[in-house]
Amino acid sequence: MMKINVEKCAKILKEQDDILILMHAHPDGDTLGCGFGLCRALLKMGKRARAICADEIQKKYDYLYKDIDMPEFEEKFIVSVDVATESLLGALEEKYAGKIDLCIDHHGTNACYSEYLLLNADAAAAAETVLKVIKALRVKIDKHIADCLYTGLTTDTGCFRYASTTSNTYRAAAELIDLGAENGRINRVMFETKTWSYAALERLAIESMEFFGNDRICLITITQDMYAKTGTSEDETEAIPPLTRQIEGVEIGLTLREKEDGTCKCSVRTYESVDASKLAAAFDGGGHKQAAACKFSCGVEEAKRLLVEESLRLLS
Amino acid sequence: MMKINVEKCAKILKEQDDILILMHAHPDGDTLGCGFGLCRALLKMGKRARAICADEIQKKYDYLYKDIDMPEFEEKFIVSVDVATESLLGALEEKYAGKIDLCIDHHGTNACYSEYLLLNADAAAAAETVLKVIKALRVKIDKHIADCLYTGLTTDTGCFRYASTTSNTYRAAAELIDLGAENGRINRVMFETKTWSYAALERLAIESMEFFGNDRICLITITQDMYAKTGTSEDETEAIPPLTRQIEGVEIGLTLREKEDGTCKCSVRTYESVDASKLAAAFDGGGHKQAAACKFSCGVEEAKRLLVEESLRLLS
Repeated sequence: MMKINVEKCAKILKEQDDILILMHAHPDGDTLGCGFGLCRALLKMGKRARAICADEIQKKYDYLYKDIDMPEFEEKFIVSVDVATESLLGALEEKYAGKIDLCIDHHGTNACYSEYLLLNADAAAAAETVLKVIKALRVKIDKHIADCLYTGLTTDTGCFRYASTTSNTYRAAAELIDLGAENGRINRVMFETKTWSYAALERLAIESMEFFGNDRICLITITQDMYAKTGTSEDETEAIPPLTRQIEGVEIGLTLREKEDGTCKCSVRTYESVDASKLAAAFDGGGHKQAAACKFSCGVEEAKRLLVEESLRLLS
Repeated sequence: MMKINVEKCAKILKEQDDILILMHAHPDGDTLGCGFGLCRALLKMGKRARAICADEIQKKYDYLYKDIDMPEFEEKFIVSVDVATESLLGALEEKYAGKIDLCIDHHGTNACYSEYLLLNADAAAAAETVLKVIKALRVKIDKHIADCLYTGLTTDTGCFRYASTTSNTYRAAAELIDLGAENGRINRVMFETKTWSYAALERLAIESMEFFGNDRICLITITQDMYAKTGTSEDETEAIPPLTRQIEGVEIGLTLREKEDGTCKCSVRTYESVDASKLAAAFDGGGHKQAAACKFSCGVEEAKRLLVEESLRLLS
């Protein structure tokens, strides 16, 4: 593994063709924005490129890629974007693990699995770094690329809200808006619009809130039963974890999601006082300082007990 | 009334002393950020200045002004910030109407009531313009001024979310962060933290939602009874109106707030398809294209009937 800078990254990409871009499973706006943004740039350079991920892409992200004509080819060079560990590739892990040539990422916890690694752990979104790469490739950024990268910025920062957002993030956003990114429309789709079914799920989620440790821990539990009642699925729950840390005094927000097989996983949200990735690491998970995740092979009640116990230990 | 530009505005302020700054009643982050930001800048220039408003300032805004030592003096020059009409001065209107020398504002509906008017209707927040004025005054912007102006930007744009946010808004934010504005902390206080009592009120507000016109109109009603039940007051309701337009398909979001005397007022939120200020104007109110307000001398049920009728007319 060799750590490289933006210029070296652009130089390597210039020399390659038939480039496959891998995005992480349960794709979010940052991995998708980076993947399709970079793919569009490479296509504009006359290269063959394709961006893929293991899971279905939510309909709201349609505009990132529906108009791209991605060719079929046998990949000669494999790039991952916003993928901290190969296990996050989900169903694509088996096929591509150990074969990734270049990784562009912003997770401090990156597992250094690729031959070349362009890592900027200070970036609030991987899209900040992909923007720099595309500029170094000297590709003229059009409205579509700008929309992709802006989507990455805004989704990974909770619309420029999180403490991870720096002046560089704001400057990148300004640049992309001047290049045509439709910030108003994108933020409306990403943050404002709730489907009727999601609004119903959110209400149940808020009703499920439990508090521990003198109200410093807030826990939401989403069960299979709730999905059934509201006609929703796990794919629609990404806006739930931030709700846990919105109540005054809460330092650790936990969102437990029951899976179909009765096991569960947990999203962890914290403020400065607690390192979320540390709490997740206690259960073999990982992530950022204020947002992390982990899985359990037990049911929600047992997971709840373990999580609260570990959370209380971290708060003491 | 004379419309002036930023340079002229700075020139006028340089020549004046004993400057009273007026902020609007029910003060929000933009009027407060502008008022105290400008006041700090004038004090740094060695002038006497004071910023005031008619109503109590919410505790969460403490950091904008608690450390300022504002002198007493007889005002020789009166400036209003983010005040579209003199009636928005509330209890200060009687004393100062007709006496305002300079107004710095961003409302297209500004009533042109001041001797000099610096109006930038393209700015998402008045703080964008006040930042330019302070720079033109050649005052070194410190962390406190930066916090004030950043607060104006972020509160008037729903944390850089609304369609009114331009690349200039993002650039101003980047500049202020580099000057020390604590974006993470400010956004946490403004947007993330819900008090227990507010969380209870929000739940009741969501339960009160009614839909009209094939679900294109969403109406929330907040009654005095709800305040009593949750231990909240009208001052804590500013985050409620945005909830009305979050459900898919809603084009007009109405939030009716019952006052102590049984009359009520309404906050209007819309998307591009409807001009909120037009709807408000039908009831002698005003505001922006996507956020406006109006008052009623009747109770909530009658106001509801009138509002829904007028909304249906605008949608047809």
